[in-house]
Amino acid sequence: MRVMGVDPGLTRCGISMVESGPGRRVSALAVDVVRTPQDLELAHRLLRVSDVAEEWMDTHRPEAVAIERVFAQHNVRTAMGTAQAGGVIALAAARRGIKVAFHTPSEVKAAVTGSGTAGKAQVTAMVTRILGLQVAPKPADAADALALAICHCWRAPLLERMAEAQARADAARQRYEQRLAEQRKAVRG
Amino acid sequence: MRVMGVDPGLTRCGISMVESGPGRRVSALAVDVVRTPQDLELAHRLLRVSDVAEEWMDTHRPEAVAIERVFAQHNVRTAMGTAQAGGVIALAAARRGIKVAFHTPSEVKAAVTGSGTAGKAQVTAMVTRILGLQVAPKPADAADALALAICHCWRAPLLERMAEAQARADAARQRYEQRLAEQRKAVRG
Repeated sequence: MRVMGVDPGLTRCGISMVESGPGRRVSALAVDVVRTPQDLELAHRLLRVSDVAEEWMDTHRPEAVAIERVFAQHNVRTAMGTAQAGGVIALAAARRGIKVAFHTPSEVKAAVTGSGTAGKAQVTAMVTRILGLQVAPKPADAADALALAICHCWRAPLLERMAEAQARADAARQRYEQRLAEQRKAVRG
Repeated sequence: MRVMGVDPGLTRCGISMVESGPGRRVSALAVDVVRTPQDLELAHRLLRVSDVAEEWMDTHRPEAVAIERVFAQHNVRTAMGTAQAGGVIALAAARRGIKVAFHTPSEVKAAVTGSGTAGKAQVTAMVTRILGLQVAPKPADAADALALAICHCWRAPLLERMAEAQARADAARQRYEQRLAEQRKAVRG
């Protein structure tokens, strides 16, 4: 499975492309950080981020795009910009029929380091080791984008199985309720 | 000037098209509310909002798109969705070379009612009167989208004059500093 990982942002937006093989094998195809100047208008910053992301999607044709889920940050303005950068990338994926998944920072950290509260250095070190890179990816946004893609490669099968189990449980409940309604009808009749 | 007003949102997104004439004359060309189901995936909700907004831009060819500036709301998740809806519309405008402006809720209320803390009913009543509508626009998102466009029609000339004055002041300061540096050089020399 080929996954594009996105650590969204306007000042720095990390983008990665990771391919997963059998088992937990993953390899990095590309990673980069898109930067947009702070004095550029918001709409044009979004346009630059979107243009690069679309070029990546059209070049590498990922099956899924994994984006970091943004929560309220210390700085509300930054959080909004981050959410909007993630939003335009999700939109570009939806336009191409590519699946979009959001993972929280703690899900990503837990996936690559085993701890949901791991620090940046630890995430970078594990990403470097997991992908067998010669040098550690820099800046942190690049490492985070790779971690997001790895997290998705490893979580996607699990999430799919969970969704299937949920669907089966829903169907069973529906059948049960239907039977119950029929029995009640029979008793009343 | 033709202005598209946007009260961004995922559950309900108000969109309006307003034309301004001489003086403070404004008239409504169209208004609608785009709705997307809450159980639809975020990326596909953004796609629907974006598709409608792009169709409006291509049909009515506005000179500017005025979007409500989102602040932190009670519900962080809602605020993020609202910011993202506004973001994809700003992106669509930037792609078409259409100017994008953000106005805060209090700027909008102040423009149409004279008070930055006016209630929804007051905004709707004033929008109805200003545009000379037979019936009040409903729901509130439609009235807000119209108010945003009106606010932009009236504020845009002022904002432009302010930007020009700022540019002149910057140029004057630069000339003054240059002259000062030359005089200092002459004294030293």
